[in-house]
Amino acid sequence: MERCRILFSGSGGQGVITAAIILAESAVLYEGLNAVQSQSYGPEARGGASRSDVIISDTDIRFPKVIQPNVLVCLTQEAYNKFSELIRPGGLLLTDNHYVTQEKKVDARHVGLDMYKKVMDKIGKPIVFNICMLGALIELTQLIKPESIMKVLDIRIPAPFLDLNKKALELGQKLVENFER
Amino acid sequence: MERCRILFSGSGGQGVITAAIILAESAVLYEGLNAVQSQSYGPEARGGASRSDVIISDTDIRFPKVIQPNVLVCLTQEAYNKFSELIRPGGLLLTDNHYVTQEKKVDARHVGLDMYKKVMDKIGKPIVFNICMLGALIELTQLIKPESIMKVLDIRIPAPFLDLNKKALELGQKLVENFER
Repeated sequence: MERCRILFSGSGGQGVITAAIILAESAVLYEGLNAVQSQSYGPEARGGASRSDVIISDTDIRFPKVIQPNVLVCLTQEAYNKFSELIRPGGLLLTDNHYVTQEKKVDARHVGLDMYKKVMDKIGKPIVFNICMLGALIELTQLIKPESIMKVLDIRIPAPFLDLNKKALELGQKLVENFER
Repeated sequence: MERCRILFSGSGGQGVITAAIILAESAVLYEGLNAVQSQSYGPEARGGASRSDVIISDTDIRFPKVIQPNVLVCLTQEAYNKFSELIRPGGLLLTDNHYVTQEKKVDARHVGLDMYKKVMDKIGKPIVFNICMLGALIELTQLIKPESIMKVLDIRIPAPFLDLNKKALELGQKLVENFER
């Protein structure tokens, strides 16, 4: 496989760290891959855009930070403004239409989705917005099988919330099922 | 301040990643410091000892992995066997007496505590074991103020579990209040 460098960005409460951890764990535990997941916080973390990095590879990963992501997810306008220029040429830029208005041209495939809106319409709980995003991401990239994510949800998510999370994952997948991969 | 490199290790369900994230966030959000938090998973992650790294500093942090920790926390025997030799000479090695038997000599201060036993006796919920450990750690190292951790718990922990977590933090602090720092 080609090494995949993913940068999730958004604001504090949107669950980007959790999404990153779930993705990394599913790669390692159920797909036999290596993964590194990290977040760095500097002065900009106080009130600014938060980011979380994941690298997934079938070979050793030496440097754990993402410099130029193949896949960039921006869940707020601030995150988009700050990180969109980092994207690797030809990469995938995934944004949410409720939070982000595309303003710049980047040399990447830009997919804007109604993830937040769909989650609110169909499930009504903003807390699973991050898992819906993960569903869209794995469907667009074909990076990790949904079953592998489901297995990590089984371990990580408390029982009362498990169904909501699985629904959100499927909702994200369905949002992009007719998209080109 | 001296840069602090902390390595948390244990098994999957013990909450070492969550503890690491809470510590890093409290440093950044409420103490004006910089922090990096990461986990790398390789083949050893499948069924082996899991680790999570935090670096806290008042200056920029360029390389996010911990090579030689000042503070090493081992919550299982396997984690202790695997990581204890990494400790920086003169560092602090914190272990739990229920899970870990000291077998080797390391050039560090070794503090073995009855954290798991106390959590089960006083609170009865193993899920807050990680927060009790964090209480002991901040009290021994004086790295972060307990109020800063409390504020992060307020944000991160769902309301029904908040009291349990705050109790566990205080329990950990009390366990070491008569120890030399």
